[in-house]
Amino acid sequence: MKHYSLILVFLLAVSSSVCFAQTENAEIKEDFKPSSKNQPGKEYPQVNSQGYARFRVEAPAAQSVNVSLGLGGRGGTDLTKNADGLWTGTTAGPMDEGFHYYHLTIDGGTFNDPGAKNYYGSTRWESGIEIPAHDEEFYALKDVPHGHVQQVLFPSPSTNTSRRAFVYTPPGYTQETSKRYPVLYLQHGWGEDETAWSNQGHANLIMDNLIAEGKVDPFIIVMTYGMTNEVKFGGLRDFKIDAFQTVLVDELIPYVDANFRTIADRAHRAMGGLSMGGMETHSITLNKPEVFSKYALLSGGTYNPEELKDSSKPDLIFISAGSKENPERVLNAVSALKEAGYNAVSYVSEGTAHEFQTWRRSLYELAPLLFSK
Amino acid sequence: MKHYSLILVFLLAVSSSVCFAQTENAEIKEDFKPSSKNQPGKEYPQVNSQGYARFRVEAPAAQSVNVSLGLGGRGGTDLTKNADGLWTGTTAGPMDEGFHYYHLTIDGGTFNDPGAKNYYGSTRWESGIEIPAHDEEFYALKDVPHGHVQQVLFPSPSTNTSRRAFVYTPPGYTQETSKRYPVLYLQHGWGEDETAWSNQGHANLIMDNLIAEGKVDPFIIVMTYGMTNEVKFGGLRDFKIDAFQTVLVDELIPYVDANFRTIADRAHRAMGGLSMGGMETHSITLNKPEVFSKYALLSGGTYNPEELKDSSKPDLIFISAGSKENPERVLNAVSALKEAGYNAVSYVSEGTAHEFQTWRRSLYELAPLLFSK
Repeated sequence: MKHYSLILVFLLAVSSSVCFAQTENAEIKEDFKPSSKNQPGKEYPQVNSQGYARFRVEAPAAQSVNVSLGLGGRGGTDLTKNADGLWTGTTAGPMDEGFHYYHLTIDGGTFNDPGAKNYYGSTRWESGIEIPAHDEEFYALKDVPHGHVQQVLFPSPSTNTSRRAFVYTPPGYTQETSKRYPVLYLQHGWGEDETAWSNQGHANLIMDNLIAEGKVDPFIIVMTYGMTNEVKFGGLRDFKIDAFQTVLVDELIPYVDANFRTIADRAHRAMGGLSMGGMETHSITLNKPEVFSKYALLSGGTYNPEELKDSSKPDLIFISAGSKENPERVLNAVSALKEAGYNAVSYVSEGTAHEFQTWRRSLYELAPLLFSK
Repeated sequence: MKHYSLILVFLLAVSSSVCFAQTENAEIKEDFKPSSKNQPGKEYPQVNSQGYARFRVEAPAAQSVNVSLGLGGRGGTDLTKNADGLWTGTTAGPMDEGFHYYHLTIDGGTFNDPGAKNYYGSTRWESGIEIPAHDEEFYALKDVPHGHVQQVLFPSPSTNTSRRAFVYTPPGYTQETSKRYPVLYLQHGWGEDETAWSNQGHANLIMDNLIAEGKVDPFIIVMTYGMTNEVKFGGLRDFKIDAFQTVLVDELIPYVDANFRTIADRAHRAMGGLSMGGMETHSITLNKPEVFSKYALLSGGTYNPEELKDSSKPDLIFISAGSKENPERVLNAVSALKEAGYNAVSYVSEGTAHEFQTWRRSLYELAPLLFSK
């Protein structure tokens, strides 16, 4: 009897999990479309209006294919092989809105999805997928005047090479040739590079749209590679700010001020960053308060009044995070800063985690606060 | 006896092929280094000083892993699995100098090498590898003033969207703000896109180096997407020039002339392209001789005096190919053009095929001829 009970429990468990899956599947809307981050002409991966993602990968002789994305962005999705040798599968639930990195595990090896474009994250070029967001209009490509994103190679004596940065110049920059602009230095996160804010973040489109709507006075954004310890990708433990601070403050800023029509003073210079870029912003703004007057940490730690008291007072401190991160820490830090007399602003992105949708929204909230009169 | 002879022949064949392989292997220099096109920190793929390429891919449970690159760029290289589950292999011979696209076939599916960066070619993001060339200095990143490569989004009413182009502005462009520059419109090949000339071709570095050596008077290069028939990737059969000609001549050129300090006349405007981009150049320059005065076909067909006679006479016709393509066709065409009184120049890239090393060298030869006094 004991034996039978065990079997019964097992059957109930299987049965209930099957019911659950059936219920869930019944709810999936079959309005899947190719992800906007697909390579031209590629039908998969697809996303539906509920945020489910569906994958299809050709590898007829493979033993197993897994997608690193699962329910709510956690876990993974095992694909199953159909008669045509195509591995297919759908996430077990809707994913968070916005951009996600992912990769495939095929027979124990890590590869990208041949249908998706690649985005540098986790110190490798990863596949990217876009879950349509209810507020996607603010970073959409629209019929408005567009700024340019310039790749520059600036001399870096401290690292004995020419280093790459991208410079967003706003619409009008090329025509209004006597006008000068404030600058935001904006850093990517750990494992990403200087392409992230344009490719994943659509920083240029966010700015183009904000400027077209009259919500932001045009400014320049400069994005460069913040991991000066290229050789070791072991993590943040060994990260020292000195090397990057030298590149940014002593090499990049003078280059930008010499090659672009900037307003080259502290009042018109901001620094911000996401995740590790926030950590860099925190360190560099405290080390060099004479260089920047506005600080922004996007899912990248907080300031406290004690560490600021010896510095030149910043005009603005902006601290944000996704609601699925640790938003209380952001809100508490900003309360403390306000009590201590700082112009501090918090922002919490609803329903998003430590991912680019949080940072797109954060930039959208930050931009109007920076240099508007 | 007949039977024995057959076995003997078979054994001789096997034995000779083994000897051949051994001889070849004995000659491979073990000075392999990571390819310069690898993702940061990735050890494989590697290349040696003779032009051999070595691959290593982790996929412990895979049944087969093949690399699409083989001897001289043809065929493929089967990798073999070692005890650690790593698939390794070396090309059977040296590869042509320069850049090559490639991909992996894993268990029947097409994937990229997780060690290499990706480059858009063959209508997909492919892996890229760089075989060091004897003349690689001309496209190396050097300590010279660098121009910028600007991503622009220009309005395209004919295709009802904003289209992307990259604009190379030479060193000095940002400082000498009253100077105006000639422009070369430079097209990629079939299955590539507007990123190809910078990423694979290093057009910006070629220009930076030529300008630093005083061999070229600075000019602007504009690169945009030439496949306006995105939906169909079936090939060139269905390609019609009209849609792209409208985008280029009626939309992009006016945008560039309005947003950059160009000399906006025929004498200071050239068009060139590689492969399909040469085909586009051929059609558009003949259709619109009033727009361009210098034409360049890089492994992209030829002009004949008959088709030119009704057109405004071009100042320069440049036609090139790799020595492993059909260089006689280029030489014969240029002879005929010269006889007919045209300023025509041929160039043959030694030891290269229908690949980017041919086109890098072609641009290096072309640039000094275009706009120098």
